[in-house]
Amino acid sequence: MTILETQGLAAKNAARRLAVAGEEQKNAALAAIAEALIARKDEWLAANAADLAAARANGMKESLLDRLALDEARIAGIAEGVRQVRALPDPIGQVVKTTLRPNGLKLEQRRTPLGVIGIIYEARPNVTVDAAALCLKAGNACILRGGKEAFRSNKAVMSILRDALEQAGLPRDCVALVEDTSRETANEMMDLTQYLDVLIPRGGAGLIRTVAAKAHVPVIRTGEGVCHIYVHADADLDMAARILYNAKCSRPSVCNAAECVLVDRAVAEDFLPMAWEYLKKKSVTLHGDPESRDILGPGVLPATEEDWDTEYGDFQLAVKVVSGPEEATDFIAQHGTGHSEAIITENYTVAQWFLDQVDAAAVYVNASTRFTDGFEFGLGAEIGISTQKLHARGPMGLEELTSTKYVVYGSGQVRE
Amino acid sequence: MTILETQGLAAKNAARRLAVAGEEQKNAALAAIAEALIARKDEWLAANAADLAAARANGMKESLLDRLALDEARIAGIAEGVRQVRALPDPIGQVVKTTLRPNGLKLEQRRTPLGVIGIIYEARPNVTVDAAALCLKAGNACILRGGKEAFRSNKAVMSILRDALEQAGLPRDCVALVEDTSRETANEMMDLTQYLDVLIPRGGAGLIRTVAAKAHVPVIRTGEGVCHIYVHADADLDMAARILYNAKCSRPSVCNAAECVLVDRAVAEDFLPMAWEYLKKKSVTLHGDPESRDILGPGVLPATEEDWDTEYGDFQLAVKVVSGPEEATDFIAQHGTGHSEAIITENYTVAQWFLDQVDAAAVYVNASTRFTDGFEFGLGAEIGISTQKLHARGPMGLEELTSTKYVVYGSGQVRE
Repeated sequence: MTILETQGLAAKNAARRLAVAGEEQKNAALAAIAEALIARKDEWLAANAADLAAARANGMKESLLDRLALDEARIAGIAEGVRQVRALPDPIGQVVKTTLRPNGLKLEQRRTPLGVIGIIYEARPNVTVDAAALCLKAGNACILRGGKEAFRSNKAVMSILRDALEQAGLPRDCVALVEDTSRETANEMMDLTQYLDVLIPRGGAGLIRTVAAKAHVPVIRTGEGVCHIYVHADADLDMAARILYNAKCSRPSVCNAAECVLVDRAVAEDFLPMAWEYLKKKSVTLHGDPESRDILGPGVLPATEEDWDTEYGDFQLAVKVVSGPEEATDFIAQHGTGHSEAIITENYTVAQWFLDQVDAAAVYVNASTRFTDGFEFGLGAEIGISTQKLHARGPMGLEELTSTKYVVYGSGQVRE
Repeated sequence: MTILETQGLAAKNAARRLAVAGEEQKNAALAAIAEALIARKDEWLAANAADLAAARANGMKESLLDRLALDEARIAGIAEGVRQVRALPDPIGQVVKTTLRPNGLKLEQRRTPLGVIGIIYEARPNVTVDAAALCLKAGNACILRGGKEAFRSNKAVMSILRDALEQAGLPRDCVALVEDTSRETANEMMDLTQYLDVLIPRGGAGLIRTVAAKAHVPVIRTGEGVCHIYVHADADLDMAARILYNAKCSRPSVCNAAECVLVDRAVAEDFLPMAWEYLKKKSVTLHGDPESRDILGPGVLPATEEDWDTEYGDFQLAVKVVSGPEEATDFIAQHGTGHSEAIITENYTVAQWFLDQVDAAAVYVNASTRFTDGFEFGLGAEIGISTQKLHARGPMGLEELTSTKYVVYGSGQVRE
């Protein structure tokens, strides 16, 4: 057995115990984790300092260093996140449906854990705790493979997590870290079908595509967002400009940020200059089709075919003039990633039509796509935003980390 | 573009139209299909006769010929099945959940189709119609790849299906048949991620394992069933024998049939001879562990390690004596396929414990595992029985062929 297979088997055994642990015991473990994160913060900070020093020496750029860095305030925030997960209702054992059959069989469809969840992510040590806490509350064991840049930080916090589990009487193997961060272990994880029930990649589009293309363990694709704001002819144009500004500029690096604005020809001349006034505040670079460049002038770069499919993750925006809702929804069907799509309009019929037509995890009328998020949607937590249709779609909270089983109470029934 | 890619693109476009077709239009298409199956039965029967003649010439064995064969009564039954699917409530557009957020956003989680469903199956022409009808009612386009032995039958019925779709004003491409039944097209289908949202293999364990191991399109594994009947010390032994007989013998070729009986040592001497009396009626071959052979004698074959993991699909049964519930559930965890598992007991606490502990799509107390079925569970239809935990578990009806999306009604909200 490889090291990873040994971890997989241990996780599977731990998952069996965890599946029948009650809410009280899981909550005790989460409380112990939150407490230990604070009590043992110096261990975690020391390991993180070593990671940061090594990353700096390797020339990691400032924005990535910021994602990697921990401090007391961040650790306090992470511990608070664990307490919030603890406070959420336990989904396990919830009865989704009951049926009494004519032959007297009583059926219950009950929520159960998924089993063992693999998570492959990049250099953000907070993910290690967030993911472990969510998996634990939903009764799942997890095997975490973080980026090599955060390895020392992850190893330090893993021992804090596992000690806390043990303190609460749960198996240490409910949470495990892949210590070899080479590409080989990532590949091995993608094929660990015997032990992993699902694999969730968290990180950039490249990571997610690679995992989805290679893995034989069932994958949940998350966080690919080429999101559109479609400004319909009957839009309140000032509202449209404010929403576009928010969707593009409030946090351009995240997956629910807008990457493209589509505007009806009938209002393009009024809307585009007004929108650009807002966007200029953040020096947004525009990539426009010929019509939008005619309106806004040569300060707008010409959009290439590639622009329509690009998740900029930055202060850049693609701009296209369309003839109306049909062209807009066709364009979204062709270039969207099925994440979040918005129409801005005062027209009731067009709004309803857009909501029906557009195939995405979240479809909006008159609001910013930035709301697609587990907390904003009221799930109380989030392990990612699914952009696939199987199993879960949109923000994934605790319920999306569960499966179900049928429990059947009989009294001697046999089938004819 | 390959032929399959062309079919994939056409199906994707058809799926967009079908996703917004109302229940009335889908029902009209289903009614037209049921009618046309009867009206044009001679076309289908003639093609089927050619398939049967070719299969006979190739030496296909009688039980497989029977699965391949159509006659008027079977076609009437298939048409009746389509009418039953028509009568089921349309899951699409159902609101699963609504939320009003503090900022005034109104969220609706609505059921949507999955998109395009690929189905790979063997030589049963009825599956072509059943699968098409279920996919259609749930708003999904489908691409069907049946076995080569049924090719003429499938091609004939496909033209009946597509004509009926057209008659109801829906795109013919809502249903498509892969006409090249070579292994290459099956492999191509498994990687058709651009067009297929999910792939469902239906058939023997070999087919399902191959598809699950190779495919990059998300797969739903169905129908792998190594099911156990566990006879607890406090069982009503006569009930246990009747249930075991039913679970093994009522239809041994199906996935919910029992393959192994576990019996508590305390009652093994009483139970096993009684059970064998029943099983002998169907000349069931037993594969027993040493203890059960001591009780029943050398007429029982010695069980090998392989027997514990074998889905006989036949009048054969593995037999093992266990020390009690712990050993039984450990054995089930190790050798079960997560399909259907039953305990026979009058002990309340042990029954509840077993239901909690055992991780399977369906867990029974005092009833035959043969009930794990979409019709028996009251779903009104079945496209297969999922033995995986992601997306759907247990019998899959219309709801399991859907996804969801969030619809968000705003009034200008932007995120801080």
